[in-house]
Amino acid sequence: MVNFELITTDGSARRGRVVTPRGVINTPAFMPVGTIATVKAMSPEELVEVGAEIILGNTYHLYLRPGHNVIREIGGLHRFMNWRGPILTDSGGFQVFSLANLRKIKGDGVEFRSHIDGSLHFLTPERAIEIQEALGSDIMMVFDECIPYPADEAYVSKSIRLTSQWAARSKAARKTEAAVFGIVQGGMYPEMRRQSANELIEIGFDGYAIGGLSVGEPKNLMYDVLGHTAPLLPQTHARYLMGVGDLPDMLEAVENGIDMFDCVMPTRNARNGTLFTSVGRISIKRTEHTRDAGPLDPNCSCYTCRNYSRAYLRHMFMAREILSMRLNTIHNLHFYLDFMRRMRESIEAGRFAAFKKEWLVILARGQEQADT
Amino acid sequence: MVNFELITTDGSARRGRVVTPRGVINTPAFMPVGTIATVKAMSPEELVEVGAEIILGNTYHLYLRPGHNVIREIGGLHRFMNWRGPILTDSGGFQVFSLANLRKIKGDGVEFRSHIDGSLHFLTPERAIEIQEALGSDIMMVFDECIPYPADEAYVSKSIRLTSQWAARSKAARKTEAAVFGIVQGGMYPEMRRQSANELIEIGFDGYAIGGLSVGEPKNLMYDVLGHTAPLLPQTHARYLMGVGDLPDMLEAVENGIDMFDCVMPTRNARNGTLFTSVGRISIKRTEHTRDAGPLDPNCSCYTCRNYSRAYLRHMFMAREILSMRLNTIHNLHFYLDFMRRMRESIEAGRFAAFKKEWLVILARGQEQADT
Repeated sequence: MVNFELITTDGSARRGRVVTPRGVINTPAFMPVGTIATVKAMSPEELVEVGAEIILGNTYHLYLRPGHNVIREIGGLHRFMNWRGPILTDSGGFQVFSLANLRKIKGDGVEFRSHIDGSLHFLTPERAIEIQEALGSDIMMVFDECIPYPADEAYVSKSIRLTSQWAARSKAARKTEAAVFGIVQGGMYPEMRRQSANELIEIGFDGYAIGGLSVGEPKNLMYDVLGHTAPLLPQTHARYLMGVGDLPDMLEAVENGIDMFDCVMPTRNARNGTLFTSVGRISIKRTEHTRDAGPLDPNCSCYTCRNYSRAYLRHMFMAREILSMRLNTIHNLHFYLDFMRRMRESIEAGRFAAFKKEWLVILARGQEQADT
Repeated sequence: MVNFELITTDGSARRGRVVTPRGVINTPAFMPVGTIATVKAMSPEELVEVGAEIILGNTYHLYLRPGHNVIREIGGLHRFMNWRGPILTDSGGFQVFSLANLRKIKGDGVEFRSHIDGSLHFLTPERAIEIQEALGSDIMMVFDECIPYPADEAYVSKSIRLTSQWAARSKAARKTEAAVFGIVQGGMYPEMRRQSANELIEIGFDGYAIGGLSVGEPKNLMYDVLGHTAPLLPQTHARYLMGVGDLPDMLEAVENGIDMFDCVMPTRNARNGTLFTSVGRISIKRTEHTRDAGPLDPNCSCYTCRNYSRAYLRHMFMAREILSMRLNTIHNLHFYLDFMRRMRESIEAGRFAAFKKEWLVILARGQEQADT
């Protein structure tokens, strides 16, 4: 089973630990995304080296390829991909609603066509849990409907009723010891968020997630909803803000008491040549790096910064070499996980507010550079 | 400086050592190809782990991208790509004649257009050495004309005269302590090969290569020319068969006294999903591997075989994941370098003939499987 231990707080910011049979996750935590049984470009050993304590797997993708039964036969997702730490799996709901074709809520689940080959599939809360248990997930997510933005109140009201029902059925479907987290939906309506949270707490989960944010809404609206919703969740359990990983957003969320994050941002940006550094965001393809013998980030201790020049990183990127994606991903994930570590230290030291302020300046500088 | 030490022989097969300031290369040796400052998909640490003692860099590619002056400014190719062992660089001749556009032998060199952006360049023997010295190569190759197949005797005769002149100029152009190897050309004509070899020996090089084989000629013709040419080279120096890395070809070549090889075969095949194993060649995309929990090669001790199933390797390949190219390349290079190690042991034990016979059976089995 999975437990959350609150170590200390600093305002609403929480420093904690999610304890699982496969290892401890120090929170606030960032989970690299390992969509289809690999965090793109990385080996499991490199994930450990950059400081990952948990990764995320996508149920929808693994269900379609190679199929959860294949993974079960090989001995589960951990063995399949050679990752010994905890794995959180989403329920597939988000991808069904964002990626699959011709999706249709129907009977007790959702019918959809694979985005890969158009084949027809049917996912229910029970099936989503069955798949996650076949994968051997440590933390499973309930099957939910991720409400698009914008959505009117009547639609949201109906949707959260469905999500609560599905959440109860997801929990009831569990046959193993794996944890199940509920997902609070409710669009941008504070009252709907409150209702969703209350219904989930009523059912009772091992942790609580906030879904349906960072789906296209303006940033201040997202922060408003986050500020309303986070305090509704039990102090005693882990709180996970799904799909959010922009650095300023994580600062805001931690300030509001969020413990866990996942996002493709560091890995996808790495492959596109956008790198996070202590002096701001850097686009490695820029001509100015051509003859730069210095490291990407002089304040970084990652493998990439210890061993390669900006000139080499630019050359690898321009030549579309595989090593470019490897070195960039190592750096960006190291940066993210180091950022989380510093954030945890700042909470322990009771100086999270100052930490946030300092970093918002650095991160703004980065964006400025990236935009020029 | 670079020296060749002959440790022992078994028939014409040689077990030796190429001693360079950056490390010892045990021969017969296979050199992974690091075209543009990276052995595709691999980190330098992984190259060491699979047993690489030397890698090859392509002068033509590095000259065009990122440019030898950039690499010189960063501190040379070793520092640029973070590889501490010896590097052999080709002269660019082969790529100029096979890859570049509108090439034209003109005055004292070759004019050509870049295959990347069409820009106009001029390469001479002096320039080829200057570039290789800028890269900081440990073993440089003379600038030569790689004769296509077929070619008539008059053309070949004229070409080897040019190659000998260029070889002398290449040697004379050297300003550093780096080694220079001559390249014997001569097409498929034994007398031309003899003349080319004699002229190069007359000039005197630190090692001797055979070029212009495996350029489209039938295998038995290649073996004939190889059998004629290898004995023409001095016993006292390293002998390098350029661009040949098919496993049966290397057995044949070692039997004829060749010491060094390079080829993109293990790395390129890896990225295409063709894997070399002790039970034959395997195409990892085949359906039969979908649920195979066993390792790629039960007799292999590489990172890939120690940690991943065939099912996982197939899944990574089908999903076109970067990790697929990494894991496959690690395995294929480990296989190649382990094969060379076993070959060296068989020469030491005076049983190279038996080794060759055994492996030709295994390799034939592999090809049979790959063809079905």
